[in-house]
Amino acid sequence: MSGFSARTDFPRTWNPLARALAERRDRGLPLLDLTETNPTRVGLPSPELALLAHPGALGYAPEPQGLLSAREAVAAYLASRGAHVSPAHLVLSASTSESYGWLFKLLCEPGDNVLVPAPSYPLFEYLTRLEGVETRTYRLPRAHGFGLDVEAVAAARDARTRAVLVVNPGNPTGHYLREGELDALGRLCAEVGLALISDEVFSDFAWDEEPGRVPTVAGRELPMLTFSLSGLSKVAGLPGFKLGWTHVGGPDALRDEALARLELVADTYLSVNTPVQLALPGLLSHAPRFQEALLTRVTENRRLLRQARPSDAHWDVVPAQGGWSSVLRIPLEPGEEATCLALLDEGVVVQPGYFYDFTRGAFLVLSLLPPPDVFTAALEPLVRVLATSG
Amino acid sequence: MSGFSARTDFPRTWNPLARALAERRDRGLPLLDLTETNPTRVGLPSPELALLAHPGALGYAPEPQGLLSAREAVAAYLASRGAHVSPAHLVLSASTSESYGWLFKLLCEPGDNVLVPAPSYPLFEYLTRLEGVETRTYRLPRAHGFGLDVEAVAAARDARTRAVLVVNPGNPTGHYLREGELDALGRLCAEVGLALISDEVFSDFAWDEEPGRVPTVAGRELPMLTFSLSGLSKVAGLPGFKLGWTHVGGPDALRDEALARLELVADTYLSVNTPVQLALPGLLSHAPRFQEALLTRVTENRRLLRQARPSDAHWDVVPAQGGWSSVLRIPLEPGEEATCLALLDEGVVVQPGYFYDFTRGAFLVLSLLPPPDVFTAALEPLVRVLATSG
Repeated sequence: MSGFSARTDFPRTWNPLARALAERRDRGLPLLDLTETNPTRVGLPSPELALLAHPGALGYAPEPQGLLSAREAVAAYLASRGAHVSPAHLVLSASTSESYGWLFKLLCEPGDNVLVPAPSYPLFEYLTRLEGVETRTYRLPRAHGFGLDVEAVAAARDARTRAVLVVNPGNPTGHYLREGELDALGRLCAEVGLALISDEVFSDFAWDEEPGRVPTVAGRELPMLTFSLSGLSKVAGLPGFKLGWTHVGGPDALRDEALARLELVADTYLSVNTPVQLALPGLLSHAPRFQEALLTRVTENRRLLRQARPSDAHWDVVPAQGGWSSVLRIPLEPGEEATCLALLDEGVVVQPGYFYDFTRGAFLVLSLLPPPDVFTAALEPLVRVLATSG
Repeated sequence: MSGFSARTDFPRTWNPLARALAERRDRGLPLLDLTETNPTRVGLPSPELALLAHPGALGYAPEPQGLLSAREAVAAYLASRGAHVSPAHLVLSASTSESYGWLFKLLCEPGDNVLVPAPSYPLFEYLTRLEGVETRTYRLPRAHGFGLDVEAVAAARDARTRAVLVVNPGNPTGHYLREGELDALGRLCAEVGLALISDEVFSDFAWDEEPGRVPTVAGRELPMLTFSLSGLSKVAGLPGFKLGWTHVGGPDALRDEALARLELVADTYLSVNTPVQLALPGLLSHAPRFQEALLTRVTENRRLLRQARPSDAHWDVVPAQGGWSSVLRIPLEPGEEATCLALLDEGVVVQPGYFYDFTRGAFLVLSLLPPPDVFTAALEPLVRVLATSG
């Protein structure tokens, strides 16, 4: 027997960039890493460790949707962001990845599909295939600032499409969903029977304020089934704690049936650890302090990036409104990979646009999380290498 | 749209027993609960809470298979039980339920099937269906003490069977796999290309010693792909900590391909929380203390149960060698549900055999975990109600 499934038959070859990076690491050469998105490695504030040692942490009183006290803490957090929801409509999981898995199981037979945006973070191909589900891509047009184009969503749909996945704001494109876009999306979803899965893990990281943005679909009156996803990983900068949440919304009957089924799914796995569930109120109290420090970091790094760009440069910082990254549009020649390799020769690590399925143009993706000394040190070689392009 | 998948279309009606129990709870009536299997609720020793507040617990340095330090701790634990394995062949997950999900994804296309034992704990139907996988049942014959009958395994197989699932020792039947049974199973699996998934969560809870038992398939030279599953939930009595492990074994090429694919699956979810991974060496050091106390508890309760049985009783304690439960064979009349309801009227909660897919006879399943005062208090009404049967 080959013995293994097609759904785990993922390519395992390394691209030239990954090879070059590994080689440079092996040689112990210095790196200025502008791909670092691990919030625990960039000198941002942490909560008190003692929160984990809650007196009840050794006990176990599982509730499939998550401990009520933990769901109440999430509801209170969402309320502080303007979204008023019931803890009864929240389902905790170990991560948004797990939430996606549960939603694909809930909505899709094997062979059904969901619509995913491009460009976007390249995890959906794995998350869907592992559930026997397919993806169909809708493009986020650059002409719209990589915002949602409902006609592209409608065109991507076929008879086996069960849901539309929206990343809000886009990762790495940083564009927020707008009220008008949500209205149009709601009409489409209600008309053809699609659920909306809204990934809002970066939603609390807006760089400025602007009317008409939709920070979350949680707590809204909408005509279709909605799932709004977030978690401790981004909200409090605690990816190692493994706690995410999904708010289920939409017409009452659909919502309640979705919750009843998700409760059984969650009960099958019971995957959220008790110590973190008990610590959640404290961890979410800490979140604003983390978010404020992170926003200071990314807006300052972005300012430095824009300031470093010569006025006659052949590259641009793509406009965006939030998130942890910046996208650069660069000349088509020598293009993404050659530019990344040239930067790596200078010790600067950035990601090529193709990693995120950018098309029609050449792009680089930079994390805005690195400490100011690292980010600043990377800007000189970045500007120098890009000056030789185009 | 109905909008939801067939794979989450599980029945959600309550049986008469569950209704009667809920009603009794609502009325606040006392209960002697012989279905309690939560090890944190029965007065057994706990580890130090401070283990969770490891100085590195706020950090995040994910390794898809689990932190090396954590896998080394599992390997050392397994070595202390006589199984010598490499940490490179271990994959951590948030639970054995999650491990099962990953293995079904790894081995099965949607529509493939796995062989599951009956009687057994009724979770496999959920775990398989949610992955688009089917189950085929092989019976554990009572005539063999509910041990493995390889001919029954072979007969249950069809062209789409990908794996055999063995629960060792059986839950709730408490029968260990024997060397001769494993030999025969190995020949069958190698011949027809099946993987062996061995659930060993109760394996460290043998009530006595006896040559010829197979406590684990981890670290054995076997001709087929093997997956041996266990975790903190049972081994250290810490179900709220959410850490399980899978050892992958078998012919080198198959094993390495399985590990490479599982690494990608695990990398997609990264579900094990960091604080517990860092605490794992300390938690596994605590395990023997928990296990010793638990074994004292279950062997004493079992002794009390056998002692309480009148010599002319029409019911019997089914012979077994380990685990946390005892099975009673009871008269066919009035049968499982009526007996459970009659016991509930006396305030005693036990499980009917049908919950575990027992057939050909009537059975009750009792947890041996309750504190001695609860267990002893339940014995008098148990013996009295059973005396009126048959």
